[in-house]
Amino acid sequence: MKAKIKVTLKTGVLDPQGKAIEGALGHLGFGGVGEVRQGKYFEVELAETDKAKAREQVKAMCEKLIANTVIENYDIELG
Amino acid sequence: MKAKIKVTLKTGVLDPQGKAIEGALGHLGFGGVGEVRQGKYFEVELAETDKAKAREQVKAMCEKLIANTVIENYDIELG
Repeated sequence: MKAKIKVTLKTGVLDPQGKAIEGALGHLGFGGVGEVRQGKYFEVELAETDKAKAREQVKAMCEKLIANTVIENYDIELG
Repeated sequence: MKAKIKVTLKTGVLDPQGKAIEGALGHLGFGGVGEVRQGKYFEVELAETDKAKAREQVKAMCEKLIANTVIENYDIELG
């Protein structure tokens, strides 16, 4: 099973990389661009075939290693 | 409209960050973990309300700035 994990900064946490991209898009001539937020994305191959167990396992991975839950949210998609 | 963009390394491109996470997960006691690949994730707020035009605009942003199409793939989701 493959887990797809999106890690995003929580609302209110400053995102200077996102701001830089926002500025760069404006300089490149893209109009109507509002806020840009940058996050991280991970794909993890799992041996586990049970969806509920896989979700538990990936949740533990996010809490312990992949996301900094003080400032980041994570979203898990299995498939 | 909000565009959600996933940028991933193309198959065959080495991913040392992913490998490091794979190793770290093993050290933390997570079993059955196969390949880990790290990518990037972006959320872009757009003034454009037409879905087809928004997709064209985001595609151009990816080609020009957000993704390095030599080594990366991108996937756009609008909503």
